[in-house]
Amino acid sequence: MASVDVPVALLGYGTVGAAVHRLLEEQGDEIERATGHRLRVVAALVRDRAKQRGFDPADGLLTTNPAEILRNDSVKVVAEVMGGIDPAGGLVLDLLRSGRSVVTANKQLVARRGAELFAAASAAGVQLRFEASVCAAIPVIKVLRESLVSTNVHRVLGIVNGTTNFILSEMEHGRSYDDALTEAQRLGYAEADPTDDVGGLDAAAKTAILATVAFGSRVPLEWVEVEGIEGVTSEHVTAARALDMHIKLLGRATLVNGRVDVRVGPAFVDARHPLAAVEGAFNAVMLQGDAIREITLEGPGAGGIETASAVVADLVSVVGTSGTGFLQNDPVWRELERLEAGELGSNWYLRIEVEDRAGVLARIAQELAAQDVSVARLVQQPADGHAVLHVVTHEAAAGRVELALAAIRALAESRGAATAIPVVSERGVEELGWA
Amino acid sequence: MASVDVPVALLGYGTVGAAVHRLLEEQGDEIERATGHRLRVVAALVRDRAKQRGFDPADGLLTTNPAEILRNDSVKVVAEVMGGIDPAGGLVLDLLRSGRSVVTANKQLVARRGAELFAAASAAGVQLRFEASVCAAIPVIKVLRESLVSTNVHRVLGIVNGTTNFILSEMEHGRSYDDALTEAQRLGYAEADPTDDVGGLDAAAKTAILATVAFGSRVPLEWVEVEGIEGVTSEHVTAARALDMHIKLLGRATLVNGRVDVRVGPAFVDARHPLAAVEGAFNAVMLQGDAIREITLEGPGAGGIETASAVVADLVSVVGTSGTGFLQNDPVWRELERLEAGELGSNWYLRIEVEDRAGVLARIAQELAAQDVSVARLVQQPADGHAVLHVVTHEAAAGRVELALAAIRALAESRGAATAIPVVSERGVEELGWA
Repeated sequence: MASVDVPVALLGYGTVGAAVHRLLEEQGDEIERATGHRLRVVAALVRDRAKQRGFDPADGLLTTNPAEILRNDSVKVVAEVMGGIDPAGGLVLDLLRSGRSVVTANKQLVARRGAELFAAASAAGVQLRFEASVCAAIPVIKVLRESLVSTNVHRVLGIVNGTTNFILSEMEHGRSYDDALTEAQRLGYAEADPTDDVGGLDAAAKTAILATVAFGSRVPLEWVEVEGIEGVTSEHVTAARALDMHIKLLGRATLVNGRVDVRVGPAFVDARHPLAAVEGAFNAVMLQGDAIREITLEGPGAGGIETASAVVADLVSVVGTSGTGFLQNDPVWRELERLEAGELGSNWYLRIEVEDRAGVLARIAQELAAQDVSVARLVQQPADGHAVLHVVTHEAAAGRVELALAAIRALAESRGAATAIPVVSERGVEELGWA
Repeated sequence: MASVDVPVALLGYGTVGAAVHRLLEEQGDEIERATGHRLRVVAALVRDRAKQRGFDPADGLLTTNPAEILRNDSVKVVAEVMGGIDPAGGLVLDLLRSGRSVVTANKQLVARRGAELFAAASAAGVQLRFEASVCAAIPVIKVLRESLVSTNVHRVLGIVNGTTNFILSEMEHGRSYDDALTEAQRLGYAEADPTDDVGGLDAAAKTAILATVAFGSRVPLEWVEVEGIEGVTSEHVTAARALDMHIKLLGRATLVNGRVDVRVGPAFVDARHPLAAVEGAFNAVMLQGDAIREITLEGPGAGGIETASAVVADLVSVVGTSGTGFLQNDPVWRELERLEAGELGSNWYLRIEVEDRAGVLARIAQELAAQDVSVARLVQQPADGHAVLHVVTHEAAAGRVELALAAIRALAESRGAATAIPVVSERGVEELGWA
């Protein structure tokens, strides 16, 4: 079959953009042999034409004027790798409306303006792909949309932020939170202002996108309940280890009786669970569905060349499916409601500090029972003249656990904060030990 | 966009075929909303029309006459889910030649007659997809061909046989090989004649297909060096644990200076390696490439509904890319040579039993040194009046290790067989402990 020539424009020519250009050049023969298409970068939008680049652009490739790209009728496919909401959002919208398919690596854009962008793509009969917006090179979006289309995915569990996973891994190796964060910054895994990562906001955007695609229903960023890792202490790490678990920042999207729950927060993950072994800056996503039971994808969730490889895969997929009506643009085809915040059931680890005196255990047990929170395992340890209770519960609703903890904190015998962390295990909690 | 009606025929209506039919019926709306195509099963070839089926076919669906399907011009896509080489191979060939795209779940067919089938598909301008032939629902073929098209995958490591992984997991939990095999047979994981699984032949076919797709070069089944798990003993399991490793049957395909090495055999896998935690009947495949570093996919590697979900995904992908010239049919676009059998370098675990007397250690060390096999770690243990040497080597060629072991076995001091098992770790062997 004769090769099809595909001129491509880039919005942005930073680390990712230059890497996309390099991959398309260096792997051009392989891509053409595999797909019958020759992708060529013909223009790249930049702010500053004089800046040094990771992969030298040819003369005339760079432009500071978006209108040049919009006017170039030969360009049918554009990769947005500039990041940010403005001006990226407006440019992508203009390109879609003008009949160009767009591939984007921009999670904030997809999470915040997805509805509008997908509507524009649909109206113009073009594609909007966004593999690189979630977990870089891990092809979780393609797998969800194309391989698992018949499997009713009802749960997504992900380690979708490498920075926090690195910090938590380091804490398991004995570092304090502050030390681990400093090390992450030194290695370039964390930014000078790490709020987006450690506060869970980056993971929230990715989890909202994953939930939207997995469930076929728009999940706005505001639906995601977010807790970061700032509250994770070495005591939590120790307790996790005693339970043969690892502490992870998990993005979790769950379909419960046709309603959607999406949350990001620390969780205890059973050492036997496929996500437990994901160490350092790696990402992994587990997809659970009727026909597939569970499929887990693991790999580097960040990095210029890794992100670029996902952009290239999307470019290839766009040209490979254009005109077939395949993949309706908007992954959203139904409107599901949100599960009430407190309703999601889970097993929980509770850490409760109390005065070490007669009757206090009974009071705690009463408060838990009053909220129907059933104890599967309880370990009491002495600590500095008071007592620490480690509790693993049977499945209980998040809201009930919160109410029980609030009541426990209000007890005269309470010492310090009582905290709850969900427990993710494929074993029954009865089988868990305490070492 | 208006829905496209796609009549589908099935070759075979056993567990997988009935499950494909059920998924297409039950998930028809979701598939149509996601892809714009309505896939309908209009005919299914069976040997015995009267047999009970897992999902009741409509009247007139079943036929025992392949010509009926060949003559049905409305059918443009066919799923082969009957298994075996004959008559499946001839039927698929006829269908491809007559202009039908075919999706197959048949690893033996793809591994043994791939060249001929892909040539026929290419000549007719139709597609041949085979996701379900390797690891059931795990979408490793699609990911290799579509997501990793620009990443130069140079290594594939896989746990691609659930039966042997279950047996080895059980042995790690204390069972003997025989007990574990019996348990696998009781649970339906292993056949009455388990040769194909425990002998590594099933894994060899899957690894040959993975190598072919990953490297873009035909890897005939005969190239695969195959060792089964029959020789794995509880002593190996104990040694693996001492090294903080797990023993796995690995399919390994490696590109070394443009030449291909493909082998299946037991390996020690570092507990920190993503494949180490894959327990029981699950499968997992790790893909290593330039741009992606490594991506690991894990999930159920067998099962009727899991296999059916992969068949459905392929059907959807066929209709979604037809006519675009996307995905040249044959994944093979170059001819690479085979690496000489003994040349592949690896770290090794050697288990050597010898008389416990002065000078013997020096003799062993000499024989290893004579073949340039460099020792990274050596532990000597007493055992029933003789000595067991556990050796972990630096990287050494397989052929050199074999020669050294042959020389050691020939020593007067030798007791029992000296064996070598490759060590797969992302850490340097210097960092390994012995507990």
